[in-house]
Amino acid sequence: MCSDCNAGALNIYLFKGEAFMAMQNFVFYNPVKIIFGENQIAEIANEIPKESKVLITYGGGSIKKNGVYDQVIKALENHTVLEFAGIEPNPKYETLMQAIEVCRKESIDFVLAVGGGSVIDGTKFIVAGVNYAGDPWELVAKREPGAFISSAPDLTSAVPFGTVLTLPATSSEMNCGAVISRKDSADKLAFSNPLLFPKFSVLDPVTTFTLPDNQTSNGIIDIYIHVIEQYLTIPMNAPIQDWMAEGILKTLIEEAPKVMQNGKDYDARANIMWAGAIGLNGWISPGVAQDWATHMLGHELTAKYGLDHGQTLAVVLPSLMDVKREQKSEKILQYARRVLGITSGSDEEVIDQAINKTREFFEGLGVKTRLSDYGITADGIADIVAQLDKHGLTALGEHGDIDLKASEEILRRAL
Amino acid sequence: MCSDCNAGALNIYLFKGEAFMAMQNFVFYNPVKIIFGENQIAEIANEIPKESKVLITYGGGSIKKNGVYDQVIKALENHTVLEFAGIEPNPKYETLMQAIEVCRKESIDFVLAVGGGSVIDGTKFIVAGVNYAGDPWELVAKREPGAFISSAPDLTSAVPFGTVLTLPATSSEMNCGAVISRKDSADKLAFSNPLLFPKFSVLDPVTTFTLPDNQTSNGIIDIYIHVIEQYLTIPMNAPIQDWMAEGILKTLIEEAPKVMQNGKDYDARANIMWAGAIGLNGWISPGVAQDWATHMLGHELTAKYGLDHGQTLAVVLPSLMDVKREQKSEKILQYARRVLGITSGSDEEVIDQAINKTREFFEGLGVKTRLSDYGITADGIADIVAQLDKHGLTALGEHGDIDLKASEEILRRAL
Repeated sequence: MCSDCNAGALNIYLFKGEAFMAMQNFVFYNPVKIIFGENQIAEIANEIPKESKVLITYGGGSIKKNGVYDQVIKALENHTVLEFAGIEPNPKYETLMQAIEVCRKESIDFVLAVGGGSVIDGTKFIVAGVNYAGDPWELVAKREPGAFISSAPDLTSAVPFGTVLTLPATSSEMNCGAVISRKDSADKLAFSNPLLFPKFSVLDPVTTFTLPDNQTSNGIIDIYIHVIEQYLTIPMNAPIQDWMAEGILKTLIEEAPKVMQNGKDYDARANIMWAGAIGLNGWISPGVAQDWATHMLGHELTAKYGLDHGQTLAVVLPSLMDVKREQKSEKILQYARRVLGITSGSDEEVIDQAINKTREFFEGLGVKTRLSDYGITADGIADIVAQLDKHGLTALGEHGDIDLKASEEILRRAL
Repeated sequence: MCSDCNAGALNIYLFKGEAFMAMQNFVFYNPVKIIFGENQIAEIANEIPKESKVLITYGGGSIKKNGVYDQVIKALENHTVLEFAGIEPNPKYETLMQAIEVCRKESIDFVLAVGGGSVIDGTKFIVAGVNYAGDPWELVAKREPGAFISSAPDLTSAVPFGTVLTLPATSSEMNCGAVISRKDSADKLAFSNPLLFPKFSVLDPVTTFTLPDNQTSNGIIDIYIHVIEQYLTIPMNAPIQDWMAEGILKTLIEEAPKVMQNGKDYDARANIMWAGAIGLNGWISPGVAQDWATHMLGHELTAKYGLDHGQTLAVVLPSLMDVKREQKSEKILQYARRVLGITSGSDEEVIDQAINKTREFFEGLGVKTRLSDYGITADGIADIVAQLDKHGLTALGEHGDIDLKASEEILRRAL
C-alpha cells in the first residue's frame, strides 16, 4: 500500500530539484473506527447493519484454524451471511472479479474482510468494482500523468465494508488504498480513494499469535518501510511528524525480537498491531515529503519474480539508501542518531552504519536482503526496469528523480 | 477540554489500587477533516453545503482586526449567512442559550465557529442544544456516578458545524468535547459526545500571528498539559503512545520560545497549531491511563477566581506532580530523562528537577505558577474544595484516589 488517503488528495509532495524546508499545506481525513483488543471480534455484530446481506471475504483458510472464522460466524449469527474464500497474497484481479460477480448476483449490502492486507486490499477492489460500469481494472490502471498510484476519480460509490485484521503490515485496515495484481500481465498497481475507507476495523492482537514467522517478519518490515518512506526524505521542519515516525520505528526494533521469540506475547503483538495501523493511515505524513520508490521497485519484484512483499522491501531499501545517501544525508543522519542510537563516526561512517544496521535488523528477522539470496542475478534486472518503464514509474522518490537509470543502479547494488 | 471522544466511550481508565501494565482495549474514532495551511480559509465554501443557512459564531471581535472575519465572509459570499458574536472566554450557558434561540428561530442548518477553544466549545453546546427538548444544561450537568465529564447520553442529534481555528490550545477543533460555564452558579463542567465532532476544521497558522502573548502562552500550556494528563500516569507498555506524547512535549518546548520571540514565525506557529490539534484528539491516548485532575482543579479555579485556563494548569500541575511523586515516579522519571533531558541525580533529585523544569518552562512563557501570584491565599482553598465536592469530583486522577483531601493538599502546596 503506497499512499495515504487524505481526503482523496494524495498529499505526496514531489520536490523536483528544490528542497522545501517547511511543512506544506495538507488535508487530513480518516474516519475509520478502530476496535482494538482481545475478544473484540464479537463487536462486529453491532457495527454491521442488522438487515445487511453480508459477504465475508477471506484467504486461504488460516482463519479456520486459528478460531477467527468461528468468532466471526458466531458474531454474525443473526445476519444473512455468504462467503468468498481464496483471495490470495498479492490479490489478483482475476480472483476478485469472481467476488464482484457474487456481490452483484446476491445483492450484497456489506462486505467483511477477514485477513491481512491482501484480503483487505482485494476487498477494496471488490467493493469498488460492484457498481462500476466499466472494467474495474481501469480504477487501478488509469493514472494521472506522473502519478504512481491511481486516485480512481471515476469511482462514485462503493459497497460499505469493514475488516477483521489478522496480520499487521499494510495499514489497509485504516486507510483507503489498495494494491492489486494481475496474473495475465504481471502488473501490481496501487489505487486509493476516500470511498474505500473501512467503516470499522477490529484489531485483536490474539489473532496474530499463530502467524508463521515469515508472515510476522514480513509484516514488521512492511510497517517499518511504510514509516521510512514517509520519513527518510527531506527535512521539513515538522518535528511532531518526525518524532512520531521515529517512535514507531523504535517500537518495531524493540518489539520485533519479542514476538519472534514468543508469538503469544500479547503486549508486543498489540504494539506491533497498533504500529501497523498508524504506519500508513496519514498520521505521520501531514505536510511532509514522501518517497515510495522502495515500494514501487518492490512491487515489480513481486509481480515478476514472486518474492514476498516484505522481502522485496528488505532488498531494495538498504540499496536505495546507499544510492541516495547524499540527497537523503540529513535525514539518514537523524535516523542514525535518534532511531538507531549511532553516536560516533564521520557523517559518511554514520550513514554506512545506518545502512548496515537497517540491513541487520531485517536479516535478524530472518529476511534476506540481497537479490542473489532469491536467485535473481544481474540478468534479471532489465526485466524489472522494463516493467517500471511500462508502468510509467520513471520519476520516483521524493524528488521525482529516480528515473530508470537510478532504479537500475539501486537494483544492481542490491545484487 | 477534558476527554477524548473515542466513539462515545470515554476510554478513561481508572486503576483503583491496581496498576495495569498492558495496553487496554480501546475504541478509536475521529472523523474530523483537517484543512491545514496558509490561505485555506477559502476552502470552507466547498465544505459547507451550498443550500445551508449558516450561523457564524465568534467571540469578542479579534477576528475583525486580523482579517479572519473578512476571509470567512468572502468565502461564504454565495451562502446565506447570519452571525452570533460575543461568545466569551469560558463560554457561558447564559450567552449560548441566546445563540440556541437564534438557531431555532432562523432554522439554521450549519454553524461555523470562528475562534479559539471557547468559541468552538460554546458552538458545540449550541449545536447540541438546538434540537434538545429539555434544558440543554442537562447535557453538561448530568453525569454518570463517578464520572467527571458528561457523555450526554440523551443527545440524539446536533446541527452540523465546522470550525476556523484562530488559537491553538484545546483541540476542540478535532474532538467532540467541550467545557461550559455558568454565571449564576460558578460551574465549569465538561461534556462530550460523538455527535459533536466538527465536520471540518481549518487550521491556518497565519491566523495566530497576531495573538497576544498571554493567549499564545496559555494555549501552549493547555496543549502541554493535555499531553501530560494522558502520559504522566501509569506505565502501560504502550511505547508508541509514549513516544508520541514525548514528541509533542519536546516540540512545544522547542517551538514555544520561537513564537514568543517572533509571532510571525510560520513554521513554529504551524508546529504548535498541529500540536494543539493532536494533543487531545485521541491519537496519544489509545489504551493508556489518563489523569485529568489538573484540569478539574483548574476548572474550579477559573470558575471561582477567574484565572485563565492556562494559568490554572500552570499552577496545579507542578504541585500535583509533587503530591503524586511516588505514585507517578516511573513516568516522571521517564519524562525527566526523555523529554527534559535530565541525566544525573538520584531518583528523588531527578523528580525534583523535573518538577522545577516544568515550572520554569511555564514561568519562561510568562505564566505564573503559584496561587499567591494570583492573589489567592490559604483561605481561598476551602471554597475550591467545596466546589469540587458540589460537582462530585472526589475521586480524580488515574487511580481515582485524588479525593478532597488530596486536592486540598495539591492546592496548599501550590500557594
